[in-house]
Amino acid sequence: MDYFTIIGLAAATCTTISFLPQAVKVIRTRDTRSLSLPMYIILTTGVLLWLTYGILVNDIPVIAANTVTSFFSVIILGAIIFYRYRAE
Amino acid sequence: MDYFTIIGLAAATCTTISFLPQAVKVIRTRDTRSLSLPMYIILTTGVLLWLTYGILVNDIPVIAANTVTSFFSVIILGAIIFYRYRAE
Repeated sequence: MDYFTIIGLAAATCTTISFLPQAVKVIRTRDTRSLSLPMYIILTTGVLLWLTYGILVNDIPVIAANTVTSFFSVIILGAIIFYRYRAE
Repeated sequence: MDYFTIIGLAAATCTTISFLPQAVKVIRTRDTRSLSLPMYIILTTGVLLWLTYGILVNDIPVIAANTVTSFFSVIILGAIIFYRYRAE
């Protein structure tokens, strides 16, 4: 494996797992005040489109990364909507 | 352009611009309490690695998308560190 590929895999790992600590934090604290609802609507739409694209072109890394990211993104988006709705 | 490519471009557009409303919100409100610092450290590392990868393999879409995302990501990360440090 050349070092380009290693950098690409490291990049994909970071951007995929980065949403885990935010998902954990939002579930633990139930605090969503400074999170942007439009960000998570657009991001969730984007990762679901990436997942669709990955399935259409049969690209396993794109499918794998966006399955994980869409899981976290849906949790954060759901928490923002749920906790804000309950708070109002 | 086939519809696979259109879906891929729509996906890339969404995931790239999704951080704009969060960057605007954090600058406007200065409220970073519910944002995860580890998320933005890992995400910023990831997009800078993607940018490096894009430059190494000379992939213009990867370079373009991650230039934009790293800009927003650095703003949000900087705001979290700056406003928390000032608040403490």
